[in-house]
Amino acid sequence: MLNFQFYNPAKIIFGRGEENNVGKYVAEYGGKKVLLHYGGGSIKKTGLYDKAVKSLKENNIEFVELGGVCPNPVLSLVRKGIEICKSENIDFILAVGGGSVIDSAKAISVGAKTEEDIWEYFMDKKKVIYETIPIGTVLTIAATGSESSTSTVVTNEENLFKRSISSSKYIPKFSILNPELTFTLPAYQTACGCSDILSHLFERYFTLVENVDFTDRLLEAAMKTIIINAPLTKENPYNYDIRAEIMWVGTLAHNGLLNTGRIGDWASHHIEHELSALYNLTHGAGLSIITPAWMKYVYKENTDKFIQLAHRVFDIDFAYNEKELIIKEMIKKLENWYKSLGLPTTLREVGIDDSHFSEMAEKCLVARGLTGNFKKLNQEDICNIYKLAL
Amino acid sequence: MLNFQFYNPAKIIFGRGEENNVGKYVAEYGGKKVLLHYGGGSIKKTGLYDKAVKSLKENNIEFVELGGVCPNPVLSLVRKGIEICKSENIDFILAVGGGSVIDSAKAISVGAKTEEDIWEYFMDKKKVIYETIPIGTVLTIAATGSESSTSTVVTNEENLFKRSISSSKYIPKFSILNPELTFTLPAYQTACGCSDILSHLFERYFTLVENVDFTDRLLEAAMKTIIINAPLTKENPYNYDIRAEIMWVGTLAHNGLLNTGRIGDWASHHIEHELSALYNLTHGAGLSIITPAWMKYVYKENTDKFIQLAHRVFDIDFAYNEKELIIKEMIKKLENWYKSLGLPTTLREVGIDDSHFSEMAEKCLVARGLTGNFKKLNQEDICNIYKLAL
Repeated sequence: MLNFQFYNPAKIIFGRGEENNVGKYVAEYGGKKVLLHYGGGSIKKTGLYDKAVKSLKENNIEFVELGGVCPNPVLSLVRKGIEICKSENIDFILAVGGGSVIDSAKAISVGAKTEEDIWEYFMDKKKVIYETIPIGTVLTIAATGSESSTSTVVTNEENLFKRSISSSKYIPKFSILNPELTFTLPAYQTACGCSDILSHLFERYFTLVENVDFTDRLLEAAMKTIIINAPLTKENPYNYDIRAEIMWVGTLAHNGLLNTGRIGDWASHHIEHELSALYNLTHGAGLSIITPAWMKYVYKENTDKFIQLAHRVFDIDFAYNEKELIIKEMIKKLENWYKSLGLPTTLREVGIDDSHFSEMAEKCLVARGLTGNFKKLNQEDICNIYKLAL
Repeated sequence: MLNFQFYNPAKIIFGRGEENNVGKYVAEYGGKKVLLHYGGGSIKKTGLYDKAVKSLKENNIEFVELGGVCPNPVLSLVRKGIEICKSENIDFILAVGGGSVIDSAKAISVGAKTEEDIWEYFMDKKKVIYETIPIGTVLTIAATGSESSTSTVVTNEENLFKRSISSSKYIPKFSILNPELTFTLPAYQTACGCSDILSHLFERYFTLVENVDFTDRLLEAAMKTIIINAPLTKENPYNYDIRAEIMWVGTLAHNGLLNTGRIGDWASHHIEHELSALYNLTHGAGLSIITPAWMKYVYKENTDKFIQLAHRVFDIDFAYNEKELIIKEMIKKLENWYKSLGLPTTLREVGIDDSHFSEMAEKCLVARGLTGNFKKLNQEDICNIYKLAL
């Protein structure tokens, strides 16, 4: 186990009906003039928008709206949000939506407190964030964990670079998690969210750091919960308990706790980001394609780790000396799990061929050198993984 | 799963050598004049005291000392600490030691900011804590989880009432956890700490709240880690990795996370508190006696919960329809685990007979009515559990 610091001051407000109190929580954190940030308008159809607006008004909180965040949130809208925050003297950002809305809000919260261009923070990891506008969230999908994480991912539409920043400065002050708000999600969106959550757990699990038994077991507990509950949503989309299990895993999968004392891998995420930036694929669907390919390519780095996962999480009980067999069976089970959720497991299924593999692999490494920690991957490795994913 | 709020802003600083930076962290949280609070002097023998003092001086932090905290910390010393804080204008409390020292510091932090007598807060759960002096800790034993918990337990020596308060107001600003600091603990102390940690997990696990699969699994992960690692310390007291696993479980067992959406039981803790208050028994040793007796008395309330635990954590693989057999085997395995650590599992072993059972049971219920949530226990029930523990 490595030395670590763990600090996550987000207040999680979990349960039925809490979105009706959002104005009260904004007021508790001193919000007087709010940027109300949201996506493509589904919150207007579901009535969530009206509830949030009502609660803000009841608490005498002024607000300016900025909707239109799309999946894979884009830099231009972030820049627009920054302008509004500056010109309107916004003192709190309320993000109502999924991970894209929250990520966009985080980038705005940084940009609004600096004279520099926000994109510089995404391309230069050494830049220090000193100040941000406080954020609160009402979450509408269990997926990215952005509701209490240190990360934000934004795509620059001009050059299709998709990049992330990490900072504790914009961890939301509060996040309202009501599983009921996820009842009406299309099954495919639910599946993509679960795929992203499982990937956040895999990225942390596959480490070469030794003696991390406790966090291994916590990760396994979280994986089991997602693997069991995700398929149950198909027949039971309005089941509160199933949605609640998934939602709470989603948050803890990415709040920093399950990475304590470890170094995560993150190659699958980076390799996928190039796909979703270029083809505007949903991140979770990109991950269901890339993750099995990544596993097939890297498992020899530490077969014991894969075998432990196969035994403990995927209940594969083959003889212990059949290492290859165990690992292949596990990857097959994982692919079948994705398929059962209606997710793709090959690039062909989503109409992607090999014409941009080199370009994506090159872009993936810009400002990084190599990607991944379980196995350090160069451009050729990344191309090989794309090929395995065909 | 029940609605819940989770908020824990303690910064955990985990790893080798961090105690040498304690002054820097105190300064970061604005500490200028510190109450340096510690126990019976073991930190002087181990050199930890000198390190802390050196680091405080290097950071130009004034300090006033108050040592002498004993296991089962007492009200009189808390009152003394409160007087010092008031007369010396203390602005930060640094607790260097185990759970008793931290609990004592928490009580002082409350009392120093009120004109009321601190004991009133322990006897009247309705009293609201508005302000406290900030606390930091350097932990020397994995046990109570007080380093990031909302609870403090203090004994009033005048009437031997042992009572707790719960508040987020005195969650430590930072806690330094260096597993090396636990290398020199006597084996019995290590064992008592592990017993306390396991009990914190049991108290949360045994709930009648349904649909808590994820937190069940997280609790099971933590239990497994303690059950496997605690016995390993006997032969390997200086093994960093084993100590680190235990220390991190100890903190997460009691920081609120593993109780999210659930209602814990806490009867074993309450019943044990009467033992350790009257006989000055170490809390963890009292728990290794009371816990199996409590299990034998209550398991019929929800046999499925016990069977799940037996299968998933204690690896008992009997036929599923042999419920009684499975549960009894599990309790036997638990008793053997305690014994393997050198802990008592009967009252007779520690020289306690039935002469004060009624008195303790009565006292346990003062200002409570009943105790426990998995099964609500009255005075007769508590006496029966003491009898089962003989």
